[in-house]
Amino acid sequence: MNITSIEGRTIRKVTREEISEKEDQLAVEEPLEIQISFLENGKRIQKSVSITMRTPGNDEELAAGFLFTEGIIQSKEQFKTVNSSILDENKVVVTLMDEEVPALKTLERNFYTTSSCGVCGKASIDAIKTVSIYNDLENNILITSDILFNLPAQLQNQQSIFESTGGLHASAVFDLKGNFIMLREDVGRHNALDKVIGSAFFNSQLPLNKTILLLSGRASFELIQKANMAGIKIVAAIGAPSSLAVQLAEECDMTLIGFLGKERFNIYSGWNRIKEL
Amino acid sequence: MNITSIEGRTIRKVTREEISEKEDQLAVEEPLEIQISFLENGKRIQKSVSITMRTPGNDEELAAGFLFTEGIIQSKEQFKTVNSSILDENKVVVTLMDEEVPALKTLERNFYTTSSCGVCGKASIDAIKTVSIYNDLENNILITSDILFNLPAQLQNQQSIFESTGGLHASAVFDLKGNFIMLREDVGRHNALDKVIGSAFFNSQLPLNKTILLLSGRASFELIQKANMAGIKIVAAIGAPSSLAVQLAEECDMTLIGFLGKERFNIYSGWNRIKEL
Repeated sequence: MNITSIEGRTIRKVTREEISEKEDQLAVEEPLEIQISFLENGKRIQKSVSITMRTPGNDEELAAGFLFTEGIIQSKEQFKTVNSSILDENKVVVTLMDEEVPALKTLERNFYTTSSCGVCGKASIDAIKTVSIYNDLENNILITSDILFNLPAQLQNQQSIFESTGGLHASAVFDLKGNFIMLREDVGRHNALDKVIGSAFFNSQLPLNKTILLLSGRASFELIQKANMAGIKIVAAIGAPSSLAVQLAEECDMTLIGFLGKERFNIYSGWNRIKEL
Repeated sequence: MNITSIEGRTIRKVTREEISEKEDQLAVEEPLEIQISFLENGKRIQKSVSITMRTPGNDEELAAGFLFTEGIIQSKEQFKTVNSSILDENKVVVTLMDEEVPALKTLERNFYTTSSCGVCGKASIDAIKTVSIYNDLENNILITSDILFNLPAQLQNQQSIFESTGGLHASAVFDLKGNFIMLREDVGRHNALDKVIGSAFFNSQLPLNKTILLLSGRASFELIQKANMAGIKIVAAIGAPSSLAVQLAEECDMTLIGFLGKERFNIYSGWNRIKEL
């Protein structure tokens, strides 16, 4: 838990009986600008590729995860350095090796596919599928429903910032036996997932095809798209999936679970990976 | 409730005892492109100003609310027509009167302030405050906590799409006695609020300074920013506020309530508008 992820504040707590002052903790929300530096015609160019509202902490992971899931970079060997700015804590600069050219032509498309932005329907969904570098993964995964029933409790145990602020989304990764691997929290659910994938990116754990991704909230199109970029084959959400999330999961041959609880869940696509009772 | 807001799907429901097939309902998520048409040097220009992932329904309100809260347009008298495209149900074209020029110079800033995008810290927060056209509103509002305690139940009654899909955010507006005025639902919480403000915009109900805005989830910076643009002085969220949401609410002299329940809530800023017990 990063100390800058939480901010203290005196608030007034109101019940039917009384109003009292209380020290409260807030999830920090601050902008992060992601810049990419690369060589063009012998000159270093530094370009802003994204500004996102995020919870400070693991900013390098967020930057790497964002660039990877947007298809702008493919491997950490392309990186020379990744630095949080000393002068501006809300900026991360990713400096590519001299010979590396980022796939910035995908940026316009990517602008439309991020978060609140969107994607232009069916044609673009097809386009995304070809962008993922993990299309031919070994794929004979089979898990029991018991493994899934156990995940919500583990998520609760690990969500330290959420516990104190109530204000954060989480993405967590488990192995196929349900053992916890890692978790990241953020005010933006897409950022939490970018941080998880960015961490795997730095630790050479990609693709994540032998893991289960657990989302603390709802499953949107964008989250499924990012999971697909990381080669994830099983996504479970505590909340509901959207129509486009289900459609994309199906097209990516991904198992999508929704409304995951300790006693029940719904399978929206890829039921073949869940063992029959 | 718009019929295109919900999509049916056959899913598998898993419990510890059995796996069964079931008809389920999903919240629809589709991209919407907002275009603005205006006259420049005697020629009609049509520009794309936003693509957002939204739940279909009330698209004209969404477009108007977005353009208004981003400061691009100020009144409905500037509009000639607002049309959902006949050829493309995921496009809305806002056509301005011949003499009207949209404040597109604010668009670059606005790109950064929408949803997952962000804003460049303190300086921009000040900039936003000057943009709101409702800075000098009469402001001697006082409500009792009982009025707030009653809102969650009313929200639940009104959230028809959420009830069947579990997948939607809502924004609702109540008068200062707690009487329900309107509600909009969307997969994107910023869209739900844009639809509410867009509806008020078309019905000449702006500013909304004599209402209470209720948010079904958490309160982010962006939602407080939009509320401020509409002149709203009391915002109550069922979930947690972020640090930047509280900071902005305070700077806008707005009352911000979080964790609103039937028996309790927290006041994060502007406690003077809540009557002492």
